Amino acid sequence: MGAFAITARDADSRARAGVLSTLHGDVDTPAFVPLATKGFVRGVAPSEVAGLGYQMVLGNTFHLFLAPGHELIQRAGGLHGFSGWPGPIITDSGGFQIFSMGHGTVADEIKGRAPSGPERAGAVLAVEESGVRFRSYLDGAERELTPELSMAVQSALGSDIALVLDECTPFHISREQTARSSERTHRWLERCLAWHADHGRPSQLVYGIVQGGVHEDLRRQSAALVADSGSAGIAIGGSLGREKEQMHEIVGWATAELGDGHESKPRHLLGIGEIDDLIAGVELGIDTFDCAMPTRLGRHGVALVADPDARWRVNLHGARWGESREPVMGGCPCPTCAAGHTRAWLRHLLHQREPLAGRLLTLHNLAFVARVMGNLRAAIARGRLSQTAAALRAGAAP
Amino acid sequence: MGAFAITARDADSRARAGVLSTLHGDVDTPAFVPLATKGFVRGVAPSEVAGLGYQMVLGNTFHLFLAPGHELIQRAGGLHGFSGWPGPIITDSGGFQIFSMGHGTVADEIKGRAPSGPERAGAVLAVEESGVRFRSYLDGAERELTPELSMAVQSALGSDIALVLDECTPFHISREQTARSSERTHRWLERCLAWHADHGRPSQLVYGIVQGGVHEDLRRQSAALVADSGSAGIAIGGSLGREKEQMHEIVGWATAELGDGHESKPRHLLGIGEIDDLIAGVELGIDTFDCAMPTRLGRHGVALVADPDARWRVNLHGARWGESREPVMGGCPCPTCAAGHTRAWLRHLLHQREPLAGRLLTLHNLAFVARVMGNLRAAIARGRLSQTAAALRAGAAP
Repeated sequence: MGAFAITARDADSRARAGVLSTLHGDVDTPAFVPLATKGFVRGVAPSEVAGLGYQMVLGNTFHLFLAPGHELIQRAGGLHGFSGWPGPIITDSGGFQIFSMGHGTVADEIKGRAPSGPERAGAVLAVEESGVRFRSYLDGAERELTPELSMAVQSALGSDIALVLDECTPFHISREQTARSSERTHRWLERCLAWHADHGRPSQLVYGIVQGGVHEDLRRQSAALVADSGSAGIAIGGSLGREKEQMHEIVGWATAELGDGHESKPRHLLGIGEIDDLIAGVELGIDTFDCAMPTRLGRHGVALVADPDARWRVNLHGARWGESREPVMGGCPCPTCAAGHTRAWLRHLLHQREPLAGRLLTLHNLAFVARVMGNLRAAIARGRLSQTAAALRAGAAP
Repeated sequence: MGAFAITARDADSRARAGVLSTLHGDVDTPAFVPLATKGFVRGVAPSEVAGLGYQMVLGNTFHLFLAPGHELIQRAGGLHGFSGWPGPIITDSGGFQIFSMGHGTVADEIKGRAPSGPERAGAVLAVEESGVRFRSYLDGAERELTPELSMAVQSALGSDIALVLDECTPFHISREQTARSSERTHRWLERCLAWHADHGRPSQLVYGIVQGGVHEDLRRQSAALVADSGSAGIAIGGSLGREKEQMHEIVGWATAELGDGHESKPRHLLGIGEIDDLIAGVELGIDTFDCAMPTRLGRHGVALVADPDARWRVNLHGARWGESREPVMGGCPCPTCAAGHTRAWLRHLLHQREPLAGRLLTLHNLAFVARVMGNLRAAIARGRLSQTAAALRAGAAP
């Protein structure tokens, strides 16, 4: 197993800075982890991701299992050899994506949005104690993902951090359903850990996943149970409520439960990455985050800027940028802004549906988030997190 | 006007090496000119295009006229200011694209292929002495492009080299139709030069266009007429026959006619860029070339490699590359090959419809063509063109 060393603690919050050591290198925390869902960060080459300051990426077990397949990836030297990313890799368990097929997207559920349409329903055929049966979106074949298979696939992928299979429940289910689902998730956790103990790579870190929905007692029980398990780290998943405030409260319940005797286990918050949520998550004691936000927004023409009133966003499709000679963000050292590309030119590319626009905005957004995390890390080390967090929340440029 | 200085001549062919000087810098010739059709090279940022060794790009008057409009571009500092490309820019006249709408694509016609379908027909409403009336593919509005308007648009774009408006005729028309069309093109040439003399930027070089179809006497007459005109350079356009051999013959008629007294005018071959055609074109005395080939092939998953038997191409979609750990081309110094990206990973990206694949292959293809041209330039300077051309034709890596 790798090691997580806490190097600094904030006096006013649960925030901590540290170094997460893996077989493929260290990750300075707190850190954001860009998505390399299908074995690549969309639009950006591995060396460029590293050049932006990122040390770890997240690959998606479900998508890679379906294509090109974990056996092929294993023969190519694992996900490191196949993708050309030399540093630490975390893989999720595949559960999130499968359950997404069943009830809109789980991202919608986590954020309390309406499901994205009936055309997505029905792909989950059954959730049983053994695992989850689903229909592949690629070939229509029936498949089953079990806790053991998820671990075996992640072992073949050779990721540095594997996540256990959990049942991802929708936002609207009852407390009792949530409790039953969490219990199943805990049984699956034990099966994952047992498989890993017998067959897994010793160098691979396995993170358990805290469930429990929006219920304080269930969240705390789940956090304590995962912390007491043999997992090397702790991920917080599942439905995090309808509002940001509720999400922060739920994450706080979990990390409060991790305070005594479990400090040395690194903590990952699944699927969260808005700028204010990153700041709040760090204050709540989260060490790593993953989210589609910076890359997805970039592909869709939205750039991150130091403007909290606009949720740190500017949409470059807008007609107001048609003649703008401004860069995406003045003074920004990212490759896109440093090259002097104007908002008008980027908007033209977006209107021409040119993927270069999405790439250049993805580079900018990833650089922006990397600087936010770098600022937070440095602030924890200097004992100035509250000031830095307040400045970022007020619109200071990272 | 800029100047074209010939620095070396080949003893065995019409090939020459030179330096084409423009307001925005020099171009070492013979040179390939990548397409920045709509104000960008697809998938690749301006600084990257320059980094591959390119000194000039080609912008498309027709597309830029429709969107975002030449007035907007002019207010942004011309195409240089708008696009961020600081070096020389050549713009075509817009005629090629308009005539393409009328009879399949002109590229199809030049290469003797069947028109691409009736859905494209009818957008050219009328070709008259005044100019060509067409229906915009953007908003359905009727527009007219005249020789004078083409020059005015290109003046607003601020390109270093402007091409006159010519009538692009299909492959299959009669000799008499071709003769009439060439005569109109020559009258339009005079109108373009007159407009430029009265209103154009003195720093902008205007190239006339040689027409004449597949008929030797018409081609020779057209070449002589363009050479004798006030144009600063000579472009060879129109239908170049059905086979490569015929194309080389037709280009040869034109450049043979340019030998006496017109050597100092730079010569551009429009829309030609296959590797063997570049070699043949250089031997025939062409100085610059433009073509969609390297960028279009790259976007579609085809890489250029030193394999003449396969037309210098390898299609990375193929199942045979599913587990290939080879780079696109062994020993290739391009950014894609140097990064160690494997054919298997690139194929995976292509199958996932990830634009990064097209970008990485475009970088490789442009680098490949840049090295071919660099080899040819160096060979002319060293008096070894025939050896270098033979080696490249036999599959030597550029």
